[in-house]
Amino acid sequence: MIKLRRWNALKEISLLKLRFQSNRRTFCSKRRQLFAMSSSTMELTFLGTGSAYPSPSRGASCVILKMDDGSWMFDCGEGSQIQLQKSKVRAGKVNKIFISHLHGDHMFGLPGLLCTISGNNQRSEPLEIFGPVGLRRFIRTSLELSRTMLGFSYIVHEMKVLPCQIPPDVQKWKIEDSCNEQRLHPNERKGCLIEADSDNVWTLLSNDKISVKAVHLKHRIPSFGFCIQEAASPGKLDLSKLSLQGVKPGPWCKEVKEGRIVTLPDGRTIDPADVVGPPKPGRKVIIMGDTCNSSEIYTVGMDADVLVHEATLQNSLKDMALEKGHSTPAFRLLAHSTFSTLILLGMAAEVGKDLRIRLLVLTHFSQRYMPVSDEYEEEETVSILVKEAQEIMGPNRVLAAEDFLSITIPLRPAPQTEGSEVNEHNLAVFKQSSALKEDHAENSQVKKKVLKHNGEENELTSTEEVKAKRLKVEEPPS
Amino acid sequence: MIKLRRWNALKEISLLKLRFQSNRRTFCSKRRQLFAMSSSTMELTFLGTGSAYPSPSRGASCVILKMDDGSWMFDCGEGSQIQLQKSKVRAGKVNKIFISHLHGDHMFGLPGLLCTISGNNQRSEPLEIFGPVGLRRFIRTSLELSRTMLGFSYIVHEMKVLPCQIPPDVQKWKIEDSCNEQRLHPNERKGCLIEADSDNVWTLLSNDKISVKAVHLKHRIPSFGFCIQEAASPGKLDLSKLSLQGVKPGPWCKEVKEGRIVTLPDGRTIDPADVVGPPKPGRKVIIMGDTCNSSEIYTVGMDADVLVHEATLQNSLKDMALEKGHSTPAFRLLAHSTFSTLILLGMAAEVGKDLRIRLLVLTHFSQRYMPVSDEYEEEETVSILVKEAQEIMGPNRVLAAEDFLSITIPLRPAPQTEGSEVNEHNLAVFKQSSALKEDHAENSQVKKKVLKHNGEENELTSTEEVKAKRLKVEEPPS
Repeated sequence: MIKLRRWNALKEISLLKLRFQSNRRTFCSKRRQLFAMSSSTMELTFLGTGSAYPSPSRGASCVILKMDDGSWMFDCGEGSQIQLQKSKVRAGKVNKIFISHLHGDHMFGLPGLLCTISGNNQRSEPLEIFGPVGLRRFIRTSLELSRTMLGFSYIVHEMKVLPCQIPPDVQKWKIEDSCNEQRLHPNERKGCLIEADSDNVWTLLSNDKISVKAVHLKHRIPSFGFCIQEAASPGKLDLSKLSLQGVKPGPWCKEVKEGRIVTLPDGRTIDPADVVGPPKPGRKVIIMGDTCNSSEIYTVGMDADVLVHEATLQNSLKDMALEKGHSTPAFRLLAHSTFSTLILLGMAAEVGKDLRIRLLVLTHFSQRYMPVSDEYEEEETVSILVKEAQEIMGPNRVLAAEDFLSITIPLRPAPQTEGSEVNEHNLAVFKQSSALKEDHAENSQVKKKVLKHNGEENELTSTEEVKAKRLKVEEPPS
Repeated sequence: MIKLRRWNALKEISLLKLRFQSNRRTFCSKRRQLFAMSSSTMELTFLGTGSAYPSPSRGASCVILKMDDGSWMFDCGEGSQIQLQKSKVRAGKVNKIFISHLHGDHMFGLPGLLCTISGNNQRSEPLEIFGPVGLRRFIRTSLELSRTMLGFSYIVHEMKVLPCQIPPDVQKWKIEDSCNEQRLHPNERKGCLIEADSDNVWTLLSNDKISVKAVHLKHRIPSFGFCIQEAASPGKLDLSKLSLQGVKPGPWCKEVKEGRIVTLPDGRTIDPADVVGPPKPGRKVIIMGDTCNSSEIYTVGMDADVLVHEATLQNSLKDMALEKGHSTPAFRLLAHSTFSTLILLGMAAEVGKDLRIRLLVLTHFSQRYMPVSDEYEEEETVSILVKEAQEIMGPNRVLAAEDFLSITIPLRPAPQTEGSEVNEHNLAVFKQSSALKEDHAENSQVKKKVLKHNGEENELTSTEEVKAKRLKVEEPPS
C-alpha cells in the first residue's frame, strides 16, 4: 500500500471543492480527463556532472528541474550549494529535493544546502525531500550535531527499499538506517514511508498538474530513477465546429476546453468531445540515479522527452563499470535482472532507443573525462562517450551534460489526428543555454558550447532565428 | 585525567630504547631537556576563509599546516576537498585533522574528504581526527549510511566538553552526541575521550617533536582553539669553549648538542651546560575556532609566531558579532568569562597584542567582505578589517587570509644571551606565496597579492633578494 494518504486527501478535497463551486456546470464523466494548464517552463540545469567526487572541473551530481511553481533538485553532492550560487538558479525557489541514492557524491551537500538556503529565505511551505530509507537519519543527525536551526520546516519522505535492491555485501553490513520518530528535529515535520506498488513503482507525488514516480535501479546500494510526468493540457477548441452548431464563443469556452460539458442559457449542451481537439500530451522527463541496469525504467519511461542517464565510463571499460555498478554510453548484454530473470540489459543509449526518447543527456562522468574544450584532445574529453551513444541514437539526439548547461524542454504539440502518438511528431527542439552567472562565465566551457550551438549567447528574438539556431532533434525510430 | 595513554606509552618506549642503546653514554639529568631536531618546514595554507557557508569567492573554513612529517588540516567545511584539489597541498599527505567545533561550515566537508582521499591513496597509519564530542557520531553516521568503505583506517579522538561551554539554549535541546562504542565502522579504530586538565587545557598530542593543546572558546556551541608548539631544538656548540678545555670535536658532539653529558675515552666528561649555547625555541602557531571570547588562549598562547583568529565582522558591527558568537578585528569590553568572572575581553588584535604575537592572520570573514582586488572598492573588501586590527598591532603584523594564501613560518633564531626572551629577537619574516595550482591561478586575487608583496612570483634565490622582498614583521611591543 502506498502511504500517500495526505496527497490523495488533498487531491480529493480540491476535486470536491470544484464540484460544489458552481451549480450551473455539468461535470465531466469518468471517461473524460480533467486537464490542468501545463506549466509553461520546464528547464533542466546541470549543477554537477562528475562521478565519485566534486572536482574543480565538474561538480558532484546535482540537477535542477525548473518549472513555474518552483525548482526541484535531483541529488545534492558536496559543493552543490557553491554551484547553485554560481548559477542563475534561485536557491529560494528550490521547493522539492529528490535523492536517488545515499552515496556521498549524491547527498553530502544536502545539510550544507539546507543551512545556506535557511539564511537567505523564509519559506511558508515546508521543503519536501524524497529519498531512500536512511536519508532522514542522515539529515537529522547532521542538523542536530551541528545544532542547526533552520528558518523553515522540512519533511523527509522515504522510499522503502525492496529486499532485491540490497546486494549481499550490504546485507551483511548491518546498520541503523531508521531513526526515532518520536524525536524529530525542531524544524522537521513527519514524513511518509512510501512503498512500491505491485509493478515496483513508487509514487512520490501525484496531483492534477504533475506526477513523480520512482523505479529501482541496480547499483552497489539501493538506487532510484525518477520519472516526472506533466499532466496533459486541453486540446484546441475548433471554432468552425461551434459555428456549424450556430453557437458563438463565450466565457464558457474555457470550461469546455478543460473537458467539461457546459449547458448554455438556451438549454443546449456543448460536449468537449464534439468541439475540442485531442489533448496536448504533457512532457515527460526521466532523471536516473547511478546504475548498471536500468531495466525497471521501462515500466514508466516510454516516449519521454528527456532521459538523463549516467555514463560513467566508455564502452571499452564496461567490465569496470559493471563492477562498480555503473553504465557505459551504449552496451547490451544478456544479464540477470534484479529479480533473477534473464533480460537483454541495455545501457544509456540502448535504453534511450528502446524507450523512444527524444533527447538523451549523458552525465555522471568519471573525472578522467574532461569537458569538451580547445585545451584538451578530443579523446581526453566526454566526446568519446557522446560518440558511442550517438552510434545507437543518431547524431542529434545525444548530449553530454556539462556543469551549468541548461536545456529548455519545449511544450509538446497536440496530435494532429485522433489516436496518433506524440512521438510521431518529431522536430522537438531543445534550446540550450548557460546557467552560469556573468561573474563566473569567463573561460566557461559550457558558455563556449552554447555559443557553438546557438550562434550567439543572447536570447534569440525572432521565430526564424530560433528555428535556425536551435538544436534539432531527429525523428525517433518508429 | 587525560586519556592519552597510548601516546605517553609510545613516548616512554622511545625513551627507554634510547637509554639502552648505548652503554658508553651518560644520559641527561631530569633538569636537562632532551631536544629533537625541529621540523624545517612549517607552512600555513588557507583553503577556506569565509564564514557561514562556502561561496564562489571564499571557501568554508579550512587551514592546512604543512610540516616535514605530513600536513595537518584544521576544520573542513563543505567543499574543502575541491579547494584541496585546486591547491598545491597533497591530499595524501594529510595525516591529522582537527575540528574546532561542529557547525556545518567547519565540518560538513569531512565525510566527502575521507571518501576522496580514500580513492587516491593507501595509508599505512590510521588517519587521526580530533574534535568535540559528537564528531565521531557525525563521521560514523555519514560513512555508514552512504555505505562507504575507506582504503585506510581512521580514529576519532573526542574532547569532552565542559558544562560551562554549553549555552542554555543548546542545553535545552537534548540530542544524542555519543555513539555505540561496540559497533565501530569497519575502518574505525577506537579513539580516546580527552578531558581538560585543571587549567582547562586539553592535551591532544604530545611527543618529543611537537605538542597540540586545545582551549575552549566562547561561541554559540562548544568551540576550541588549538595551540601547536614545536619542541625546542639544540643550541649551538661553542667550539672555542671546547678548545679552552683542550678537547677536539668528534662524533660525540651531536650527543652533547642534544643535551647529554658525554664521557670521553680519557675519562673526562663534557657537560652541555658548559659548551652548548641556549636552545632555539620551537615555533608556536595558534589556530582558533569561532569565538566572541578567546580569553582562554592566554593560558597557552604567549609569544606565538602566528595567531589565526576569526574576524567575521567589522568593529562597528560588534553587537551583531557578539550576538552570533563572533569576533571583530579589535575590540575590548568588560565582560563575563565563561566562568562568570569579570574579564576585560579582547578580540583578535587585542588578543594578539596581549600575547605578543608576531603575526596575526585574520580569517572567517563574513561573505559580505570581498577579497582585496581592483574590482572592488576598498570599503567592500577585507581591507576594512585589516586596518582595524593594524591600528592595535601596527601596520606590518596583520594579514587578511585569502583562499590559497600560504605563509611560511621561519625557524626562530637562538637567543643571543642566556635568559633572553625569544620575542626580543624581532625581524621574524614570514614569506607569502600562492598555493593555487597553475591551472587555477588565472584571475586569482591571492596570486596578485603575493606578487605585490614578493615582487615576483618565482622562488627567490639569493639571501639579499629574500631579505629585500619578504614581508618584515615589526618588533613586538615590550
